[in-house]
Amino acid sequence: MTSGKINVTVENIFPLIKKFLYSDHEIFLRELISNATDATLKLKHLTAIGEATVEYGHPKIEVKVDKENKKLHIIDQGIGMTAEEVEKYINQVAFSGAEEFLEKYKDSAKDSGIIGHFGLGFYSAFMVASKVEIITKSYKEEPAVHWTCDGSPEFTLEPSNKTERGTEIILHIADDSTEFLEDHKIQQLLSKYNKFMPVPIKFGTKTEKEGDNEVVVDAIINNPNPAWTKKPSELNDEDYKNFYRELYPMQFDDPLFHIHLNVDHPFNLTGILYFPKLSGDLSIQKDKIQLYQNQVFVTDNVEGIVPEFLTMLKGVIDSPDIPLNVSRSYLQADGNVKKISNYITRKVADKLKSLFNEDRAAFEQKWNDIKIVLEYGMLSEDKFYEKAKDFALYPTVDEAFFTFEELKAKIKANQTNKEGKMVVLYASNKDAQHSYISNAKAKGYEVLLLDSPIVSHLIQKLEMDHQDITFARVDADSIDNLIKKEETVVSKLSEDETKKLKEFIETTINNSNYSVQTEALDSNAEPFMITQPEFMRRMKEMQAMGGNTIFGSFPDSYNLIVNTNSEIASKILNESDEATKNHLVKQALDLAKLAQGLLKGEELTAFVKRNFENIQ
Amino acid sequence: MTSGKINVTVENIFPLIKKFLYSDHEIFLRELISNATDATLKLKHLTAIGEATVEYGHPKIEVKVDKENKKLHIIDQGIGMTAEEVEKYINQVAFSGAEEFLEKYKDSAKDSGIIGHFGLGFYSAFMVASKVEIITKSYKEEPAVHWTCDGSPEFTLEPSNKTERGTEIILHIADDSTEFLEDHKIQQLLSKYNKFMPVPIKFGTKTEKEGDNEVVVDAIINNPNPAWTKKPSELNDEDYKNFYRELYPMQFDDPLFHIHLNVDHPFNLTGILYFPKLSGDLSIQKDKIQLYQNQVFVTDNVEGIVPEFLTMLKGVIDSPDIPLNVSRSYLQADGNVKKISNYITRKVADKLKSLFNEDRAAFEQKWNDIKIVLEYGMLSEDKFYEKAKDFALYPTVDEAFFTFEELKAKIKANQTNKEGKMVVLYASNKDAQHSYISNAKAKGYEVLLLDSPIVSHLIQKLEMDHQDITFARVDADSIDNLIKKEETVVSKLSEDETKKLKEFIETTINNSNYSVQTEALDSNAEPFMITQPEFMRRMKEMQAMGGNTIFGSFPDSYNLIVNTNSEIASKILNESDEATKNHLVKQALDLAKLAQGLLKGEELTAFVKRNFENIQ
Repeated sequence: MTSGKINVTVENIFPLIKKFLYSDHEIFLRELISNATDATLKLKHLTAIGEATVEYGHPKIEVKVDKENKKLHIIDQGIGMTAEEVEKYINQVAFSGAEEFLEKYKDSAKDSGIIGHFGLGFYSAFMVASKVEIITKSYKEEPAVHWTCDGSPEFTLEPSNKTERGTEIILHIADDSTEFLEDHKIQQLLSKYNKFMPVPIKFGTKTEKEGDNEVVVDAIINNPNPAWTKKPSELNDEDYKNFYRELYPMQFDDPLFHIHLNVDHPFNLTGILYFPKLSGDLSIQKDKIQLYQNQVFVTDNVEGIVPEFLTMLKGVIDSPDIPLNVSRSYLQADGNVKKISNYITRKVADKLKSLFNEDRAAFEQKWNDIKIVLEYGMLSEDKFYEKAKDFALYPTVDEAFFTFEELKAKIKANQTNKEGKMVVLYASNKDAQHSYISNAKAKGYEVLLLDSPIVSHLIQKLEMDHQDITFARVDADSIDNLIKKEETVVSKLSEDETKKLKEFIETTINNSNYSVQTEALDSNAEPFMITQPEFMRRMKEMQAMGGNTIFGSFPDSYNLIVNTNSEIASKILNESDEATKNHLVKQALDLAKLAQGLLKGEELTAFVKRNFENIQ
Repeated sequence: MTSGKINVTVENIFPLIKKFLYSDHEIFLRELISNATDATLKLKHLTAIGEATVEYGHPKIEVKVDKENKKLHIIDQGIGMTAEEVEKYINQVAFSGAEEFLEKYKDSAKDSGIIGHFGLGFYSAFMVASKVEIITKSYKEEPAVHWTCDGSPEFTLEPSNKTERGTEIILHIADDSTEFLEDHKIQQLLSKYNKFMPVPIKFGTKTEKEGDNEVVVDAIINNPNPAWTKKPSELNDEDYKNFYRELYPMQFDDPLFHIHLNVDHPFNLTGILYFPKLSGDLSIQKDKIQLYQNQVFVTDNVEGIVPEFLTMLKGVIDSPDIPLNVSRSYLQADGNVKKISNYITRKVADKLKSLFNEDRAAFEQKWNDIKIVLEYGMLSEDKFYEKAKDFALYPTVDEAFFTFEELKAKIKANQTNKEGKMVVLYASNKDAQHSYISNAKAKGYEVLLLDSPIVSHLIQKLEMDHQDITFARVDADSIDNLIKKEETVVSKLSEDETKKLKEFIETTINNSNYSVQTEALDSNAEPFMITQPEFMRRMKEMQAMGGNTIFGSFPDSYNLIVNTNSEIASKILNESDEATKNHLVKQALDLAKLAQGLLKGEELTAFVKRNFENIQ
């Protein structure tokens, strides 16, 4: 038996970094500005602790495009480097093993701003530059140096006459990357990646009024102190709204409310989430939350980090504890990410509960704008469902808002059927189900308005959780059948007459989609009424949402309820002229179809024409 | 001035590969089976060219779970390795620079099957295993060897008594990865990544009938010769349908048609795309195309590779020329990827054209199932728009299908207005616009049925391209105004009477959303009719699609056209009883609203009640 050491080595790792870490070329600017920021903050730290005796002042980072000479400059006023440091940090980046490399990468990610978490980002300059120069002067009393490299491993290092402290990086932009010499491109990258970095970034100049004069001043493209880095106690409502406008300049609606995230342990995360006003198309509402690491923009895809139902929110999350460049399934398995996702869910639930408790009227006003997110959360996250019991609202068609417990208390007396079950009546559309709603209200019943696309699923879940409750849409049956009580109305017609009437109507309408049911209802109730049984309709709706087509392929089936106590029922029964009798049934059926939204196309055109003729 | 060599080295690159190349742990199985496949195909190659004199036979790859001992075995019957080769390929994987590493990675990707394109994949075993063993016997006459490593760089190598040719990899699954000891998990991974790999893969056994006996046979989980690796001439329609069912076992609908992709130059790509039957929710239809490299599954996200409008297709693309693990913007900039995308667009257009030419009736039958994809393609890809002129169809409400040129020829004589413009009439819904369609058809006009969600945008584009053509929805005005000709109908009413009638109706309906217009139409035309002007409606529809709300915030505005030649117009004018007169206007307005789908909610309930009372 022999033994030995596995030897997997690579001498020059730089092209690997280029290929696998930075497949997106535009990242180079973020990396270089991150380095410049780190150099600046490091000086701040050293002056603060007395290790550097120079004046910190008000340093900036400047980005300059020199289109004519095909150069891009990034200039900072930070700690700078001595010749020795250039040798160490730029020329000799050797690791005895990848563990060390990873360790360095990982550690730097945790440090908040003193060392950039993009570690080796400097090399990304070669993705867009054919030659890179570094002119740098340390804060220490040492001469400035000038480093040059054309992308090969060969470099030169010579003295420089630079007198101010700091580092200037000069990129000689390669021929295939000239887009990075366009002002608008750089402007766009700065505003995408560096909008909230902690050191002021100058790009160009602008004119400003100063008294009566116009003066030229630096154009600073970033806000170094964005709202999420502050304490909630330092901010008022207007500040949160202003920050929202800063994040989404093209968004005209104010957000409904915000949630300030701030946690140190067991992970570090800050941020502000906003509940926006949602419009119809939910798919375009996603991917609006921006993910930062130490004020550097990373991505606007927070899938896997924020629970699915909250991806419709907007705002900012800043955390060094989220692994980057990894797959979704890896993210889902990551312990920290799971904790972060749970933390966000909990904070959102807590905020909703406090909004509900503090100003219920205002909360009710917002309900229709937030319900889709909340209902989706109740369905998809059990923990959220539990918490939502305290604030989830069930609005009626008359815009009263009940919690589920309040609803039960309200309807218990009047809406319990003879089997002892409470029946929650609901409508999905006030207009389309208007006549059915009227009938229910005439009995003093409450009718909820539940119109979200996922409401059938939510109803199913609520029924499972509350065995004493059943939901029924107002048009699922006649109102007396929906909540069956002991009382019975006597039929004006004999059994024989009822049978004869039913048979005549069945023969006349001759349509197997309508099952004719005779009922002895109040004589003022609708003579003819079309209902759609709850179970099948709900199953079809639920499966339609899931794209499943098993129930969907069944035809819609309806009941035609004929009120045997109505005057029209008697009239049909007693009419001897066959044509008049047929016309009566036809007109009554058409009117019942109209009330259920079923009279369409050719039938509707014929109805309109016939009724125009009736008034000629 | 000094100069020197930049020195960025890493000694043990293995953890780097682990972290950056394989963030998804489950990938390990794909990698090891790829290696086993390569070892098998290499032997096939060597026997074919006479370099190996052994019998190739019918080699398999076997995957075995030993849950009790926490081991996973991957066993092949390929070339195997000698002690020297283990030393070379497993122990000493050193590269003098990352370029060499990348070069190796890149080259192997181009080779079709002889050397696995996942090159260093063996190391990924350590993502899930605390210890890995290799027991291998070369096809050469040399003793078998047994290599063991616990994930540290230390390994041991000793002789083995293995007698059959090939390699067995034994993973001692780590405690945090025990999911990979579950049969169903392995089954799932095999079926995700290895379903079409070119060497049979055995996982477990199954019983099969052989005459009257049941015999136990190997369960082979893959199809080594999937349809896309064959020539189109070797396949018939049923083969393509069978392969579709193989790809999507849960899909019950047959595809509408297929497109076989096969190109060698300037890039290598094979595949089969299917046009599926699309259901309502287009967002869940995406991400069904599977991307392979040499029969190894890579991803089902082909965004950036396939043009956006074709991502609703299904099927397989197999190409070694698509860069993996790179960002979307990188993909979009890649020359090969652009060419691939253009090639696919062209092939799809060519297929559509040949389907149209070969069997137009069959093509027409499919139109409604494919039109959304095609219309979206016409809007988003100019090249496709050009080609689509040959096969894009414009169906009428009576299910005749015209190309645009045919449509022009058909309507030129009858549907050119007095300004010389051809007017294309269309409906978006046969039911809702039934009465308006009837009116147009009564004049002998063709009415298209254009009901896709993006149809307003397409109409806009067609109008821009054809200055002699204008589109109008049938309910945009009275039919005589939609296609204005020289003829005029004389009004039965005097100007004074018309004015008086108009004023009375305006006062009675008292609703600023309806602009009353009196028209002298045929006396048999509708007495009252509601129309919705084309321009504003179309703008609102277009902006609603884009989520824009500028036009959306305008109220819907309608014209109420009163036919002064109708009997009801005269009756209203001459009626002296104020209540009857008001009732006439109300009923006529309600009927007009019904025909346009505008009578809803409380108004509809009142209408139904009133009309029930009328027949009591």
